[in-house]
Amino acid sequence: MVEFTDIGDVPSAEVDRMRAVYQPLADSVRELVDATIRTEMDADTVAAVRAEIDAATARLRSRQIDGAFGVRYTTGGDSLAWGNPVIGVRNPIAPPLTIERDLEDARGRVFTDFHLGAAYEGPPGHVHGGVAALILDHVLGEVAAHADTPRFTGTITLRYLRTTRLGRLHAEAAITRTDGIKAYAVGHLADEDGVTVEAEGVFIQPRWARG
Amino acid sequence: MVEFTDIGDVPSAEVDRMRAVYQPLADSVRELVDATIRTEMDADTVAAVRAEIDAATARLRSRQIDGAFGVRYTTGGDSLAWGNPVIGVRNPIAPPLTIERDLEDARGRVFTDFHLGAAYEGPPGHVHGGVAALILDHVLGEVAAHADTPRFTGTITLRYLRTTRLGRLHAEAAITRTDGIKAYAVGHLADEDGVTVEAEGVFIQPRWARG
Repeated sequence: MVEFTDIGDVPSAEVDRMRAVYQPLADSVRELVDATIRTEMDADTVAAVRAEIDAATARLRSRQIDGAFGVRYTTGGDSLAWGNPVIGVRNPIAPPLTIERDLEDARGRVFTDFHLGAAYEGPPGHVHGGVAALILDHVLGEVAAHADTPRFTGTITLRYLRTTRLGRLHAEAAITRTDGIKAYAVGHLADEDGVTVEAEGVFIQPRWARG
Repeated sequence: MVEFTDIGDVPSAEVDRMRAVYQPLADSVRELVDATIRTEMDADTVAAVRAEIDAATARLRSRQIDGAFGVRYTTGGDSLAWGNPVIGVRNPIAPPLTIERDLEDARGRVFTDFHLGAAYEGPPGHVHGGVAALILDHVLGEVAAHADTPRFTGTITLRYLRTTRLGRLHAEAAITRTDGIKAYAVGHLADEDGVTVEAEGVFIQPRWARG
């Protein structure tokens, strides 16, 4: 069972305050992830840094939630997917993507511009094919899910036209049609030279979310 | 152009020594990523921890490689994909997976048992569908690539049977047939109650790697 967490009547200002506490921490850890992959420091320095990190982790863990972050929502309609590995502002694994909606597009087109560095590398200098899949699954899922209608991936097919260079990237998706509980979406990933990966997917409203 | 890095005649013992320096650092940062998502500490503590992390990052960055880690290989045949976001022992984003080969299986079956926690969550308590895609892309790619024949994803299709619970997971893949530059692979992801996502893909030898 997938359970979203109702955190009640939390004002948007309080949501903003919480974001301002935790988002910068995730931003800093994201930089540390990059440095961990790329550092050439000697063994003694690395061991000393590691001890500092373990101490920082212990301090953060002295008060923490059980299990994962979940997806929290407020009475006012704020939705907090802060632990999400694609868009989560509290998750250092997430680039994180900010997904924008094209309000003039009838197909509900969404798009996002972002940067991927060393942490996302598969073939040397290029984006891991599975990372392209991770991002496209999310972006297609965003366009397929209406605010009040969660839809999860049913099937998704990715076609790789060529390898995607690390650096500045763009992804977008649109709905091609809906059919009852199903939404059909297409999208692509692009680097500065154009489209690199195309995706199409069927997204399905889970049984528990059907009116 | 995808360029692998020849690091020359580095003995396996030296490769092991380097791994022993950097792998524990990545393990510690992976724990910090989890704590960053789950902590409930107050704003002042979080700010103090953040300053410590920034200092640690600066120390690691005082000597670091330009750009991403790449994929390095030695004259002796060691291959170091240590920055890889699925299997990279220096990448805190990677779970990391250890992929094993079933030596008795004619289809070259590979498999891996691993754990996914808070950093990989999509639907509350469950694995992000795109993370399932990331892992299956990698595992199918591993079975499709022979040691001397890099093969990159051509197309991959994922079918989601149900949501995958966070926790202990298993993935596996096998080749169904090869046809010149192409290899066809199938695989699946499973949680403790069975298969959750099925995958099939075509993996293609890049032009520069064809004899």
